[in-house]
This record gives sequence, structure tokens and C-alpha cells, in this order.
Amino acid sequence: MARCKFCGLNRAEVYLDYARLSLCPSCFTSFYENKVRKIVSKYKMVRDGDRLAIAVSGGKDSSVLLYVFRKLFPNLSITGIHINLGISEYSDYCEEIIRDFAKRLNVELIIVNIKEEYGFKIEDFKNTFYRRKLCAPCGVVKRYILNKIAFERGFTKLATGHNLDDLVAFLLNHYIHGDVDQIVRIKPVLPGSKIGFVTKIKPLCEITEMENIFYAEYNQIPYRVEECPLSSGPTVETRREILELLIRKNPSFRHIFFKSHLKRILPALKVESSVMLDKCRNCGMPSSSKTCSFCKLVSKIALKSVSN
Amino acid sequence: MARCKFCGLNRAEVYLDYARLSLCPSCFTSFYENKVRKIVSKYKMVRDGDRLAIAVSGGKDSSVLLYVFRKLFPNLSITGIHINLGISEYSDYCEEIIRDFAKRLNVELIIVNIKEEYGFKIEDFKNTFYRRKLCAPCGVVKRYILNKIAFERGFTKLATGHNLDDLVAFLLNHYIHGDVDQIVRIKPVLPGSKIGFVTKIKPLCEITEMENIFYAEYNQIPYRVEECPLSSGPTVETRREILELLIRKNPSFRHIFFKSHLKRILPALKVESSVMLDKCRNCGMPSSSKTCSFCKLVSKIALKSVSN
Repeated sequence: MARCKFCGLNRAEVYLDYARLSLCPSCFTSFYENKVRKIVSKYKMVRDGDRLAIAVSGGKDSSVLLYVFRKLFPNLSITGIHINLGISEYSDYCEEIIRDFAKRLNVELIIVNIKEEYGFKIEDFKNTFYRRKLCAPCGVVKRYILNKIAFERGFTKLATGHNLDDLVAFLLNHYIHGDVDQIVRIKPVLPGSKIGFVTKIKPLCEITEMENIFYAEYNQIPYRVEECPLSSGPTVETRREILELLIRKNPSFRHIFFKSHLKRILPALKVESSVMLDKCRNCGMPSSSKTCSFCKLVSKIALKSVSN
Repeated sequence: MARCKFCGLNRAEVYLDYARLSLCPSCFTSFYENKVRKIVSKYKMVRDGDRLAIAVSGGKDSSVLLYVFRKLFPNLSITGIHINLGISEYSDYCEEIIRDFAKRLNVELIIVNIKEEYGFKIEDFKNTFYRRKLCAPCGVVKRYILNKIAFERGFTKLATGHNLDDLVAFLLNHYIHGDVDQIVRIKPVLPGSKIGFVTKIKPLCEITEMENIFYAEYNQIPYRVEECPLSSGPTVETRREILELLIRKNPSFRHIFFKSHLKRILPALKVESSVMLDKCRNCGMPSSSKTCSFCKLVSKIALKSVSN
């Protein structure tokens, strides 16, 4: 590979096709950090006095996010929130990785063990109509608990490690299915509300998965490499294959798509005047119906146990 | 292959993956014609007293459209409009095919030779900034002339042979690029206006390309097989490859996407209060600026000739 385009001295190790840029590890790290700084500033993601919670799963994206935020914003109050989903050794292994890493970074970490705190684990949904497709209920559980903890403990923002590849894959799927309610939620900052929603931010929204992998590599950031044993393989494979083909045809595809979505489609979409939210009669968190999605979901396991 | 799912007698020759249906040629033909009838009725595409113009290129989709409309609506006034684009032997070959076919069907045919009537041919755009990418100016030219002829001659509707694959490929491209102005134009019926736009209908909008090929085959419909010698190969290939992958992953992908677009996205998109249209100072057809796109385009060739 050629010399680094930035310093002109070191051998380039990273090639960013969308920018036609060959960089050495050191210049790549600066480039990456600059990019995060610009995203945070462009979308006004944090401000003085914020108490930031970062959702950390033990995976590469959220670990990179924790590390780069600790490095770039040393004065910002940052706390990690990790959910142990009770997926046997896998979840314990994830918890161990993030526990060690948070300690190394000297970042406070909140760990929620759903088996201990809520009395169920993700695998329990196998007995409901979800059967082997557990990513859907797992997503609901994670989103609910992360928001609840962040809200109850007074965090002002909740950050997640979603990268550009994740968001573009969601977008493609939502556009194909015309899921307008989901489409309007895909943005860098999703404002919260006083009745129980914390503002969500996605500081890696314009950074590709590959950039996160390189950054983790060059900065010795530990993360679990194993795929979740419950994830539905073909879906993940399909998503990857489609994205790869689109990127091969146009290296800037993800950047163009995400930008078009934000700048052109979102402003043209009529956003419904927000649904009237009430309190869930079970848990007290905001809900558009009498019982919130999380409580409805968990009741499915409970009902199953009764009927067995 | 198994027996036909409909008659149970003949050997099935067509397999429609999106419907998991194996059919014999004869039942497929009925199935296809029923489908066209349903589309026309569902979207209220034609009514008594309509004078319909059908754009016929000599390609399979528009020839199938001409044939099936002649067969299904024997009392409807139908006229073909064919544009000879002046692409050397290719255009003459297309004209010959459609001339013979219209004669066989006893359908009146209007032929516009752009070299004779407008003094240029598509290849002349090679000397402008379009260079080898001639599909864009060709599209503008065809849309303008078809609408103009249909309007001036008092046709009430103009039908084109766009199939589901075409429309889904356009949609994918427009969503990725956030081209809202184009997105809102992709629908089965695009209403016209008295100031110079004829209502456009796409009666094959829910029919796949493969269904058109089978229907043409079983009904001895002649069409040109050659690709246009000016078409930009890689673009067409890319489009095909991406669609094929998406369909392989989900045989109903095209149907789901088009339906979602019509039922969920379009109603949520704010359609701009129609741009103020004026008359083009050159040709008198409606235009959003002083000179219409067609006249602007053609002036590029003229300017080039002057500067040469």
C-alpha cells in the first residue's frame, strides 16, 4: 500500500474508499477523532452540564464510543450502562469485558442484570410466538431499560454506538416497508421529553463499521468478537450482502443515503403530532396505550408460564 | 416442473416466486390479463370516452401493453405513439417492428422522427457535457415529445409500459438520493392539467418484467431484443444485480416496496403546492422557468454547433 496521504511519511494501512484516502494508523486515529468531534458539534449533541449515559454492550461500536468520548471530552460526566441479558456464558463474557474496560478508563458503570432485576432472560421469549427470532423482543427490552435507568437516574442524554452501516441498513428496511414511524426516528439526535424519555444521541452515525474496527484495533480497545448466539443468522447475512453490493457499486452509497434521508426526505415527511402519551398502568413509564410495549412483552412470558 | 396450479391438467411452465404459483401458458395468460384488468380498475385508469395514447418503443413492455389493451378493451380508442430517436439502424429497426405490429393489431400509429421534426438526434448529445451518458437527455426528449403530441392531438390519457421492476429501481434510486420531487411522481396515475400536461397512466405498474416476457412469448408479441447501443451498460447491469439480490432474499420485495411507497410513504410526504407554471418562451409548453427543460437541452446542441 502507498504512503499515508496525510503525513506522507508512514506506510498507509487504512484505505477509505468513500473518501479515496490512504492513511497510516496514527493519522487515521486523528482523522477519526476529528470526525467524531465534528459530528458532536454539528448536531449539538452535548453541552456543558450534561450528564451523559453511554449504552455499552461489550461490542466494538459502543466500546469505541466510550473510549473516544472519554478521550475527547475529559470534563464531560460520563457513565456506562450495561445490560446483562442473561444469554448464558455469552452475557457474562460481555459483562466481564466491559467491566474491565470501564475500570481501565476510570468510567463509572451501571450494570443491570435482567434475570436478577426483572426475573426473566431473553431466551424465555423462545417459548412465545417470537420462537427463534429474538432480536425483536431483545431490542424492545434494551431500549426500555436503557431509557428507564437513564431517566430515573437523572442523565440528560443517552448515547448509543450505532454506526453508519447500522443506520443505513435500518433505513433501507424501513423505506422498503414504508415504516414512517421508524423512518422519522432515525436521526443523530432524538429529543426526549419530561414525561419519561431521555434525549438519545448517536455520535457515530456518520462513521462506518470498518472505521470503528480500525479505530478499536489501533487503540487497543477490547470487545467481544463472537456474534450473539441468539441472533438470527440469515437476517444479518442478508443485510451484510445487500449493503456490500450497494457499496461495491458506489463507495459513497451509505454517506449519500444517510445525508439524503436527513436533508431531503425527513423535512418533507409530515410528522404526526405526537401521539398522546399516558402512563403505563403497570410500570408508570410513558406509553401510547394503557400498557407499554415492554410490560406487554414481558406479560407474554408470564402468561406462558401460567399456561404451562 | 409440476402441473398447473389452476387447471391441474397441463404442465406448468411459469413459476411466479412471489406468489408461489406454477402455471401453464394458457392459465398464465388468463392470470396476466386478469391482473391488468384489476390494476386498470383499482386505479381508475380509463373511463368511457377516453382517447388513449400508448407510448410504444418497440420494446417488450410497451408492445405487451398495446396488445393486452387492444384485447381487453376492444371499445377503447387507442393510438400508438412511436418516437424514432435517430439512433442509426437501431431506431429504424424499432420503428419497423412497431409499424408491423400496429398494422397487425389494426391500431393507428403516430410516428415522430426527431431528426426530421426537430432537426437533431440523440447521438448529438455526445458532444455536450452528457458525453456517453445519453439516457438522461433521451428521457427528457421522449417525455416532452410524448406529452406534447398527446396534448396537441387531444388524447385524454397517455399510457407507458413501465413495469414493476422499472418502478422499483427508480424508487430505490430516488430514495437513496432523497429525490422527493421524483418520488412523488412515481404512481399508477399522474393527473394532468389543462395547461399542457396529459394524464399519465402506468397499467403494468404491478407486473414484473419476467411476467411481461412470458406474456409476450405466449402471445407471439414481437419486440426488439437488442439493448439500445447508446445505453450506459454498467448502470443497467448494476440496477439488475441489486434488484436480483434483493429479490433472491425476498421474492416479494418489489411488491412490498411498491405497495409501501403508495400506501405509507406517499401519503406522509408533504407535496409542495404545485410550482407556478408559465409558458416556455420558446415552445409555449408549460415550464417552471422561462425556458422549458426540453428547449434548454436542445439549445445545448445548437450552442455546440455554433461554437464548433
